[in-house]
Amino acid sequence: MATLVAPPNHSPVEDAESLRKAVKGWGADGKAIISILGHRNAAQRTQIREAYQNLFQEDLIKRLESELSGDFERAMYRWILEPAEREALLANIALKRDEKSYQVIVEISCVLSPQELFAVRCAYHNRFKRSMEEDVAANTTGHLRQLLVGLVSSFRYGGSEINARLAQSEADALHEAIKNKNKSNEEIIRILTTRSKTQLVATFNRYRDDHGIAITKKLSDEGSDEFHMAANLAISCINDHKKYYEKVLRNAMESVGSDEEALTRVIVTRAEKDLKEIKDVYYKRNSVHLEHVVANETSGDYKKFLLTLMGNDD
Amino acid sequence: MATLVAPPNHSPVEDAESLRKAVKGWGADGKAIISILGHRNAAQRTQIREAYQNLFQEDLIKRLESELSGDFERAMYRWILEPAEREALLANIALKRDEKSYQVIVEISCVLSPQELFAVRCAYHNRFKRSMEEDVAANTTGHLRQLLVGLVSSFRYGGSEINARLAQSEADALHEAIKNKNKSNEEIIRILTTRSKTQLVATFNRYRDDHGIAITKKLSDEGSDEFHMAANLAISCINDHKKYYEKVLRNAMESVGSDEEALTRVIVTRAEKDLKEIKDVYYKRNSVHLEHVVANETSGDYKKFLLTLMGNDD
Repeated sequence: MATLVAPPNHSPVEDAESLRKAVKGWGADGKAIISILGHRNAAQRTQIREAYQNLFQEDLIKRLESELSGDFERAMYRWILEPAEREALLANIALKRDEKSYQVIVEISCVLSPQELFAVRCAYHNRFKRSMEEDVAANTTGHLRQLLVGLVSSFRYGGSEINARLAQSEADALHEAIKNKNKSNEEIIRILTTRSKTQLVATFNRYRDDHGIAITKKLSDEGSDEFHMAANLAISCINDHKKYYEKVLRNAMESVGSDEEALTRVIVTRAEKDLKEIKDVYYKRNSVHLEHVVANETSGDYKKFLLTLMGNDD
Repeated sequence: MATLVAPPNHSPVEDAESLRKAVKGWGADGKAIISILGHRNAAQRTQIREAYQNLFQEDLIKRLESELSGDFERAMYRWILEPAEREALLANIALKRDEKSYQVIVEISCVLSPQELFAVRCAYHNRFKRSMEEDVAANTTGHLRQLLVGLVSSFRYGGSEINARLAQSEADALHEAIKNKNKSNEEIIRILTTRSKTQLVATFNRYRDDHGIAITKKLSDEGSDEFHMAANLAISCINDHKKYYEKVLRNAMESVGSDEEALTRVIVTRAEKDLKEIKDVYYKRNSVHLEHVVANETSGDYKKFLLTLMGNDD
């Protein structure tokens, strides 16, 4: 369930006019901006962008960018985009970063539905005039490249059929491949990049039943290079993405000074989807409410905005 | 330009009724079937299928399958499907064949536009309850698998921008990779599976200008294993698919007893697109009209049907 609270009816023109008032003059009125955009779903935000453009011949996003700053600006910028456009932007930011981390690439490729991932690839074309896999491939080599390009390019079958015999044979194949290390990553790559999610979950369950250990645990015991880390991430995202996000949030809060990039990413991308369940998982794991921790670790309009998206207006 | 001659207006119901007459009783009336379906475009054929189903509670495709036989039946079966469905079927047939040939897989991946290829992947899901790359991956290994899965999964950027510096550096990279043989197929795979077609053509041109030889020629000089053959096919399809199809047709005619599978495939898949230009290329290369050769090599309703699709009723 979403945590976003959006009214069924709103007037894009009135919203655009209120936003205009909030950004005009000295210093933008963050509270007013949050009270509108923090309560509009993706379709409504797009209507507001259009109304704003028509009324004031100005791009709302550009205006907000120039009026806001810091974590609040980055969060608002990500939030206001349509989901596919946002994910394309997040992928591109991750690929341009100096200290390469492929977490965001794996996350987008493995959490989204096959159709959603394809929409992100389309948005990437439109925005960057290149394909997403092109940029991933140009930034990587070897097995890591094969795995990441395969994940990004995947269009998994979305049905719920499970082939139990295949789950057994591929659980065995994964076991062999992990034991042999680097030699046969090919099978790990093939299985993780082509099989349907339902089938993969059956395979991971088979693995755990046969070997008494989760495949992610076994993988991280065997190697901590980039390939193993990326494979592990992919499995976590496919297996249970809510648990995966709980861990991302936990790490973000526990890191020194907290990791705003990750915190913003999870809240902004999941607020309209399943942040409610992710909050529940977080509470179960940590015995403290996510809002409570977020409120302690952030401040100002950024804090107010995140809490609004989490469904807590004050 | 298409060679198919289809009237702008037709009545799906009348067509369905005429087809019913043609398939009823002893022995189907091939001529009547050709005179209708051989003159209807994809959208019209779909309307006819729907009208036939509504009128007679029967699947027209299944009925035709049971009434017709041999090359004529196979050609009609392929023709009546929607393009994406047909390509998905052709890919699946190629993957199930005993003596594996990946020509059809490469052809579909590299000739179709990125959006068309995606439509084929969707159709493959619907029809076979698996992903196309899943079946390709399960049938191959090593570099060949990487190349084919990469081609099938590609969603190339479709814009016309060319980066001349990139064309130079990747022409050099391809040259190095081809010289070193098997060692660095990775770069060949990366470039062929991720770059836009416009960019790739610029790279192939750069290669020819720098080395005085077409890259396809160089590749086939260096190796004739499956990987090299598939890479070569991909380059031919991307570079100039009309020239590629001319060659497929020429080989099909020259092979002993002629290769009906290939002949049917090219005519059926291109009749609504650019068979006119392919015929021109054929004539320039062979100084004989394609229709003439097809008429000599085929017979009966199959012959009549192919010639109709080629725009020659008699």
